[in-house]
Amino acid sequence: MKKQIAILGSTGSIGTQALQVIEEHPDLYEVYALTANNKADLLAEQARKFHPEVVVIANEDRYLQLKEALEDLPVKVYAGNDALSQVVEAGPIDIVLTAMVGYAGLRPTINAIKAGKTIALANKETLVVAGELVTRLANEYHAPILPVDSEHSAVFQCLEMNNPVHKVILTASGGPFRTYTMDQLQTVTKEQALKHPNWHMGAKITVDSASMMNKGFEVMEAKWLFGVRPDQIEVVVHPQSVIHSMVEFEDGAVKAQLGVPDMRLPIQYAFSYPRRVHLSGERLDFSKYSTLTFEKPDTARFRNLALAYEALHQGGNMPCIVNAANEVVVSAFLSDKISFLGMSDVIEKAMARVPFIQIPDYTDYVETDAETRRIAAELVINGVK
Amino acid sequence: MKKQIAILGSTGSIGTQALQVIEEHPDLYEVYALTANNKADLLAEQARKFHPEVVVIANEDRYLQLKEALEDLPVKVYAGNDALSQVVEAGPIDIVLTAMVGYAGLRPTINAIKAGKTIALANKETLVVAGELVTRLANEYHAPILPVDSEHSAVFQCLEMNNPVHKVILTASGGPFRTYTMDQLQTVTKEQALKHPNWHMGAKITVDSASMMNKGFEVMEAKWLFGVRPDQIEVVVHPQSVIHSMVEFEDGAVKAQLGVPDMRLPIQYAFSYPRRVHLSGERLDFSKYSTLTFEKPDTARFRNLALAYEALHQGGNMPCIVNAANEVVVSAFLSDKISFLGMSDVIEKAMARVPFIQIPDYTDYVETDAETRRIAAELVINGVK
Repeated sequence: MKKQIAILGSTGSIGTQALQVIEEHPDLYEVYALTANNKADLLAEQARKFHPEVVVIANEDRYLQLKEALEDLPVKVYAGNDALSQVVEAGPIDIVLTAMVGYAGLRPTINAIKAGKTIALANKETLVVAGELVTRLANEYHAPILPVDSEHSAVFQCLEMNNPVHKVILTASGGPFRTYTMDQLQTVTKEQALKHPNWHMGAKITVDSASMMNKGFEVMEAKWLFGVRPDQIEVVVHPQSVIHSMVEFEDGAVKAQLGVPDMRLPIQYAFSYPRRVHLSGERLDFSKYSTLTFEKPDTARFRNLALAYEALHQGGNMPCIVNAANEVVVSAFLSDKISFLGMSDVIEKAMARVPFIQIPDYTDYVETDAETRRIAAELVINGVK
Repeated sequence: MKKQIAILGSTGSIGTQALQVIEEHPDLYEVYALTANNKADLLAEQARKFHPEVVVIANEDRYLQLKEALEDLPVKVYAGNDALSQVVEAGPIDIVLTAMVGYAGLRPTINAIKAGKTIALANKETLVVAGELVTRLANEYHAPILPVDSEHSAVFQCLEMNNPVHKVILTASGGPFRTYTMDQLQTVTKEQALKHPNWHMGAKITVDSASMMNKGFEVMEAKWLFGVRPDQIEVVVHPQSVIHSMVEFEDGAVKAQLGVPDMRLPIQYAFSYPRRVHLSGERLDFSKYSTLTFEKPDTARFRNLALAYEALHQGGNMPCIVNAANEVVVSAFLSDKISFLGMSDVIEKAMARVPFIQIPDYTDYVETDAETRRIAAELVINGVK
């Protein structure tokens, strides 16, 4: 029986690579649903190739364009965020790959969990914003959450039945500014931030990598995925991105997953788990990677990482605040409205200003997100005093 | 229920470290039997501390000394190789740690397998000499063989249920002569060879590490333990010995086990498998190991590795020939009777001279071993033309 897959965010970097994986294994996987935010053209092209039952475009203004492009195909075409959130509930779907960007992933992921689907989680913001709620629901509805982030997939691949994780060691490339001084960081541009040394990814996550907020989010994600305390999660800067992450066990043994940087591997692993199947592409060759280095992350230069740990320690809606403020500042940075270092200032101020809620429910998260965006936007416009 | 453990070779490097592991977990393990070759004093001391049921000294000349030293204790004292080989069959024993040196390990290991014991295999020569026979018997008598070599333990820790191993990547420190030229290798002494950069081990295995015969043996061992072809086993020189070895799967994912060099970990893992339990000692700290490097082994300077692969390809009694010749030349090297590079010459000649047997039985191995020792000794004395 082929697994039926829904890809939320099929036109993005993860989505298109997921389709490459599916194309390589027509005997194993079938596309049930594809969704995208805005790129109607690419979505139509993908639908023509992979024959999904349903496609959804979130931006309703693109509905007609998409509908027309697909009118000769027997595919259901919907538009809007409600349709996007509901499509994951369809009976035949086995796996929902959540590959959309940011907070927008929360609602469809919760719906998919409540429908008992296996979640291939690429949208880490879901766990950053509402990790407690999401993991509780996943437990309640027996919906496994399998990580697609390369770091968390690495950890997941190293887990052992019955042997608890003592420590999670997340590797970080350090991004394009790893060696920059504070002075240099004052003036870096979005063009520089978008040049990631090892991975080709979407703009939002690439900026998050440059600012190390991505690693901060991954620390939060690791807490919820693997049930460890913040002090059990260590970040090690490893510029070559060959060791994708590690687990230390009670006896001191460390296990790691390594490979060439290729997101298709963790995507496919989430699809094929617990089996592994062949994947085309380059194999790890130590004559090409003859030196692997490790250094401590510098939270003086990359304050976002410290802010993320702080938010994780405080818990409640604090990670939701950090996420919303970060979405605002990254968007502002990509529009040249804030400096690279200014991003952390706004996030820190937002953390202090938005009301703290120790035990938030879903509505609290929605309100926190909205309120933080309002305050962060104001801080971007008026500046942080 | 505490696991009852027999340690063959308890006074050696692995044996003494195994006793440290047992001492750390009196709730989990109990010593049933201890054996040694010659060191009666240390064996008596160990017996006094760990209260085994039985002790055996292989060298019969030391029997009285041992017997007297333990006469106030309720411990059975035996001497001789027959007693040593039989002690492993005792009913209450759960695990037999084979930590003796060289070919001598073969007979007691086979006896332990026939008695259905779990084998914690530190004596790699058993698999080098008679891998086909030993793994067939282990299968027939349902006696699991768990590796204690740090490399094979690393691979074993990375295995996955139902996902076959695509490639085994054994790391090698490269030993003390890694960077030596051929000219320098001409004149190296045993004192230099015995200074291993990372591991403190017995003299035989330390010389084998310097000559890379140890790695050749490990390639053979890997073939039998993990059921892979020689071309699926790669050796990578990794001077820091932090990555203990790796496995590549069908999808290209590579998994590794890492740690500080500490043989107690693989010893304990073989005892506790499939569980892990706490082990005291240093944890891997990437601020101490900030650079890991990898290079190809140079089989022009380290010919033993090429000879081992050649023997593995030929199969039959050829690995047994290599092992016996190697035991002779290492012993000669440790007595200043042969040069470092001369060792490979003798092994190569022995491979050409001893009659090849494609499908040897146990008697063939015994005869091959004896005949090779005779020929190798002659080659050491008269020189290789």
